[in-house]
Amino acid sequence: MLPVDLPGTVRDALLAPLVDHHCHGVRRDDLSRAAFELLVNEGGSPAPPGTTHFDTAFGMAVRRWCAPVLDLEPHAPPAVYVSRREELGAAEVNRRLLAGAGVVAFLVDGGADGVGDADLLTATEMGRHGGAAADELVRVERIERAVAESAPLAVDYLDGLGDALAARAAKAVAFKSVAGALCGLDFDPARPSRGSVIAAANRRLSDPKRPLTDEVLLRHLLWSAVDAARERGLPLQLHAGFRPAAPGETSLPWVDLHRADPGRLNEFAGLVQPLGVPIVLLHCYPYHRQAAYLASLHPHVYVDAGLAPPHAAAASARVMAELLELAPFHKLLYGSACHGVAETGYLGALHYRQALGAALGARLAAGEWSPADAARVAHMIGSGNARRVYRL
Amino acid sequence: MLPVDLPGTVRDALLAPLVDHHCHGVRRDDLSRAAFELLVNEGGSPAPPGTTHFDTAFGMAVRRWCAPVLDLEPHAPPAVYVSRREELGAAEVNRRLLAGAGVVAFLVDGGADGVGDADLLTATEMGRHGGAAADELVRVERIERAVAESAPLAVDYLDGLGDALAARAAKAVAFKSVAGALCGLDFDPARPSRGSVIAAANRRLSDPKRPLTDEVLLRHLLWSAVDAARERGLPLQLHAGFRPAAPGETSLPWVDLHRADPGRLNEFAGLVQPLGVPIVLLHCYPYHRQAAYLASLHPHVYVDAGLAPPHAAAASARVMAELLELAPFHKLLYGSACHGVAETGYLGALHYRQALGAALGARLAAGEWSPADAARVAHMIGSGNARRVYRL
Amino acid sequence: MLPVDLPGTVRDALLAPLVDHHCHGVRRDDLSRAAFELLVNEGGSPAPPGTTHFDTAFGMAVRRWCAPVLDLEPHAPPAVYVSRREELGAAEVNRRLLAGAGVVAFLVDGGADGVGDADLLTATEMGRHGGAAADELVRVERIERAVAESAPLAVDYLDGLGDALAARAAKAVAFKSVAGALCGLDFDPARPSRGSVIAAANRRLSDPKRPLTDEVLLRHLLWSAVDAARERGLPLQLHAGFRPAAPGETSLPWVDLHRADPGRLNEFAGLVQPLGVPIVLLHCYPYHRQAAYLASLHPHVYVDAGLAPPHAAAASARVMAELLELAPFHKLLYGSACHGVAETGYLGALHYRQALGAALGARLAAGEWSPADAARVAHMIGSGNARRVYRL
Repeated sequence: MLPVDLPGTVRDALLAPLVDHHCHGVRRDDLSRAAFELLVNEGGSPAPPGTTHFDTAFGMAVRRWCAPVLDLEPHAPPAVYVSRREELGAAEVNRRLLAGAGVVAFLVDGGADGVGDADLLTATEMGRHGGAAADELVRVERIERAVAESAPLAVDYLDGLGDALAARAAKAVAFKSVAGALCGLDFDPARPSRGSVIAAANRRLSDPKRPLTDEVLLRHLLWSAVDAARERGLPLQLHAGFRPAAPGETSLPWVDLHRADPGRLNEFAGLVQPLGVPIVLLHCYPYHRQAAYLASLHPHVYVDAGLAPPHAAAASARVMAELLELAPFHKLLYGSACHGVAETGYLGALHYRQALGAALGARLAAGEWSPADAARVAHMIGSGNARRVYRL
Repeated sequence: MLPVDLPGTVRDALLAPLVDHHCHGVRRDDLSRAAFELLVNEGGSPAPPGTTHFDTAFGMAVRRWCAPVLDLEPHAPPAVYVSRREELGAAEVNRRLLAGAGVVAFLVDGGADGVGDADLLTATEMGRHGGAAADELVRVERIERAVAESAPLAVDYLDGLGDALAARAAKAVAFKSVAGALCGLDFDPARPSRGSVIAAANRRLSDPKRPLTDEVLLRHLLWSAVDAARERGLPLQLHAGFRPAAPGETSLPWVDLHRADPGRLNEFAGLVQPLGVPIVLLHCYPYHRQAAYLASLHPHVYVDAGLAPPHAAAASARVMAELLELAPFHKLLYGSACHGVAETGYLGALHYRQALGAALGARLAAGEWSPADAARVAHMIGSGNARRVYRL
Repeated sequence: MLPVDLPGTVRDALLAPLVDHHCHGVRRDDLSRAAFELLVNEGGSPAPPGTTHFDTAFGMAVRRWCAPVLDLEPHAPPAVYVSRREELGAAEVNRRLLAGAGVVAFLVDGGADGVGDADLLTATEMGRHGGAAADELVRVERIERAVAESAPLAVDYLDGLGDALAARAAKAVAFKSVAGALCGLDFDPARPSRGSVIAAANRRLSDPKRPLTDEVLLRHLLWSAVDAARERGLPLQLHAGFRPAAPGETSLPWVDLHRADPGRLNEFAGLVQPLGVPIVLLHCYPYHRQAAYLASLHPHVYVDAGLAPPHAAAASARVMAELLELAPFHKLLYGSACHGVAETGYLGALHYRQALGAALGARLAAGEWSPADAARVAHMIGSGNARRVYRL
C-alpha cells in the first residue's frame, strides 16, 4: 500500500493512528446487494440496467482492499463480496473495517433528524466498533429544526436558537453546517439584519419540518453558530464541493456544484477571522485547490479531502498532490467522511495513507524533503493538526 | 504506444475496434499549409508572425504519429508533412488516417447548414474511408433553422419543430445540441412557457438565418428534442466545456468557458431523468471532473473527453486519469470529436488508447485491479457502453 | 534538479539564461524571522500559534534549495536559515539568489505607490544584483492614482490619464494591470461611455487616495492602456487567478478567486484583438487550464504560471504539465512573479526549469518529441517568446 522504499520513520508516521475529524455513523443492519449499491453511490439511484455501482473506482477498491478484511481473495466478485458481508453480519463487518482503519478518535456527525437515523451507529458505537475514542460534531441544521418546531413566535426562534447552540456547544468538539448543500456557499457573507431574520423566521415557523433553504436563515444560523463556537473555542466545519446534498435530505433539489466552491467563502472567512473561530472546509473536490488557497491565505481556515480519496480510490494520489500544492501542512486534516457503509471509513484511511505516502515518497526520492520533515508532516496531517484544532 | 508490460488480454481490449460516438466529417479537398494550420487551431486565426500552429501538443503529435502513416519518419518537419499530405491527396490521407484509427462505427454530426459543408465527408463517406459502419447524429440547431426559415407564423414554428424533430429522430441514433456554445449551459432548466416561446419565435422569424442564441428558444428546442428522443429511445448529446463555438458559426461571440461548465446542467439533468432520455456530455474539458461527478450522480448522464485527448496529445493521460476519479466505468464513452482533418480522428483514437492504457497499467502494476477487470473496463469504454446507449 | 537522462542540448536549453518577464523588487533590508514569514505567505497574517509559514511547500523549498546558496546544508532548520540570512546581510543574500536564478533580463513591476516601496529594490537594482538587464513594467493603477490626485476636474482626469499613459509608454516595455484583483475579471468588456466615465471620475476625485475599485474607471483605465499600448507596440499584462490582491493594497477586501478566472476575459480579448495589443495573463492558477485555452484561441493572448511554481515547489511539475495541455508553445512565458524576498525569484527559476525539464523528459522518454524540438521549445518559453513579445 505504501511505497516500498520509504524510510521507517516515515512509514511509521503514515501508519500511526489517525484522528478522523469528520465522519458519519454507518448502517448497523445487514444489507442486500441492492441496498449496498445504493449506499455506495452518491446519487441515490440504482445503476442503469445491465450495469452496477461496483463498476466504479470505489467498487474496485472495495473488492481489492475490503475483500481480504472479510477473508476473501482480492478482487472477489461483487456477489461474493455482498454475500460474505451478509454471512459475517453487519456488526462483525463494521468492527473489522472500522478497527482496520487504524483510527484513534472519530469525530462523528450524527446527521439530520429523520427517517433512518436509528439504522446508523451512534458516535459512541462508532468508537466502540473502531476501538477508538469518539466525540460528537453538532450539525447546526438539526438544532435549527428542533428550535423551529418548538418556537411559537419568531422572537422565540431567535432566542431559542442561540440558547440551543450554546447548550449543545458545551458537549461537542465542533459545529458542522451543510449550508453549502442547502443554498450554496455564494451567500451574502454579512450578518443578516434582525428585521430580515424575523421576517424569514415567520415564514419558517409555518412549515418547520421542511429542510432549511432560506438564505437569510442559513446566514443567521451560521453567524449564530460562530458566536456560540467563539464562546467555547470550537471550530465550525463547512461542507464544500462535491456531494452537495445533505444526507436524509435527498428530496431537495441539489445545489449546482460550482455554487459549493469553497473559494466563495473568502469574504465570509475574512469576517470570521477576528472572532478566532477556525473554519474547516470538508471534501472540497473538485475545488480542493481553491480550498487549499483559502487555507494558505487565512490563518484560521483548515481543509480536508473528505470523500475524494475513498471515491477516487486508485486515483486519489493526484487529489492529495493537488491539495499539497498550496495548503500549509499545519492546515490539512484527515477525515474519511465515512457514511452509509464502513467500507468508506476503511478505504478513506487506506487511500489517505496511500496518497500521502506517494507524495512523500516522491519528495524523498527527489531529495526535496528530509525524512524527518516527511515524518513530521505525516504526523501533523494524520493527527497533530486535529488535536490542536479540536483541542482533543 | 501502450505500456510494454500490459497483460495480453488488456492490450487486446485496448486495441479492439472502437465505437466513435461523436465525430464530424473531415475535409475532402487538398489543403495548403495555411489551410491545414487554420483547421488544427480552435481559434480560427493564423498563428502570430514568426510562429506556427504546429508548435502545439497537437502539432507535435501530428509529426510524431501521423507522419509514419504517410510513410514519413517520425518528427518530420511541418513543411515536409504538409507537402507529403498534398502528394498523397486528401482521399488517400483520409483513408489511411481514418482506417488507422481502428474504429468499427462512426456516429457523425453533419453540422450546421452553411458554407463549406460540401467540403466535408458525409457520414456514409466517413464510414467508407474508415472501413466502418456510420450513423447520423442530428444537430437540433440545424433542424430548428430549417423550421424557422419555412414557418410563416410562430404557431407554425412550434408545430413544425416538433414534427421535424420526430421525423429526423426516425433515422438517427441520437440528437446533438450545441446550446452550450450558443447561450451557455447556465440556462433556466425548466420548460419555457408556451407564451414566452411564441413571443421569442415571432422575433426569430424576422431573421431566421441568424444563429440561434435566444435562450427561450434554445430551451424550447432542448425540451422538444427531449420529447422526440423519448419517443424513439434516443440519447441527447450536449456540447460542454472547451471549444464552446459551433463549427460554421464562428461569427458568433463565443460564450465564456465557465458558462459551458457541464456541472451547471445538474438541475436540467434532474428534470430529464424521469423521462428516461440519456444525456451525453461532450468534451467537458477543463470541467471534466464536474462532468464525471454528474455522471456518478445521475443514472442517465454519460460523458466523454472529446477533443481533450487529441489536443493535449502527449499530456492526455492526466485528463483521462481525472475522468476516472469519479466517472462510473459504465458511463464513459469514446469519442474523437474528429473534425476538419482526419488527423483528429487518428490522434483521438491513439491518445485515448494511450491514456487509458497508462491508467490501466498503473492500476495493474499497483495490484489495484485484476487484469480481467481492466480488460472488461477497456471494452466497456471503447465500445460496449456506446452499443448499449445508442442501441447499435 | 533536472532529469538525469536529458540530452545535452535539452539540458543546455533549460539551463540557458531566462527572461523573467514579470517580477517585483525584493526587500533591501535585513529581515527578522517574523518579517520573513510574513513575506513568504500570501495572506499577510502570522501562522497560527504553534505553527510556522515554513511548513509549506515554499518553506520546504527554501530550506532545500536556497540554504546551500547561503552555504548551509540542505534542509537547514528555519531558525538557522533566517539567522544565516541576517549574518550575510540582505544585499549579499539578494545578490546570491538573484544571480543564482540565471536570468538575463528582469522586467520589473515597481508596484503601487505607497508605504514600503522604498524598502524594495528598483528595477535597476534588481538588474545589478542579478547580473542582468532590467526594464520597467508600468502599473497602470499607479498612473491612474497620480492623475486622480492632481486633476482638478473630471475632464482633466480623462485627458490627463491618456497623456500620462502615453508618456510612460515611451519608457516602458509593457503595461501591467491588477484590475482583476481590484474588481474581478468579470467586468463588462466594452469601452465605457464617456458620460459614465465622467460621472465615475467625479466621485473618484473626491477621494483619490483610495485604491481604485470602481468598475467603470477600471474599464476606462484598461481601454486607455490598450490605446497607449497600441501606439507604442506594447503588451498589456493582466493579473489573473490566485493572489488576487494588489501588493500594498492589502486593506482591500479581496476579490473572490473565481472572479479572477482568466477565462472570463474571453470577450475582452476578442475586442482587443483587432488592435494588435498582446494580452499577457499572469499567474492564472488554479485557472491555468482556462488561460492556456484562451492562449490557444486568441492569437494575441500569452500566459505564464507566475507564482504557482515557486509556491507549489516540489509539486510544480503538475501545474506546468497542465499548462502544456493546450497552451501553444509560442504563447508560454517565464515569469517568477518574484516579490518580497529574493527566494521567490530563485525558486521561481529553479522550479520552472525543474517542471519543464520533467515534462520534456517524459516526452523524450516516450518518444513523443525529438530532442531538437524539446530544446527548441525550452528556448522559446525560457526567453525567445519574451524577446518577441516585448521586443527586447
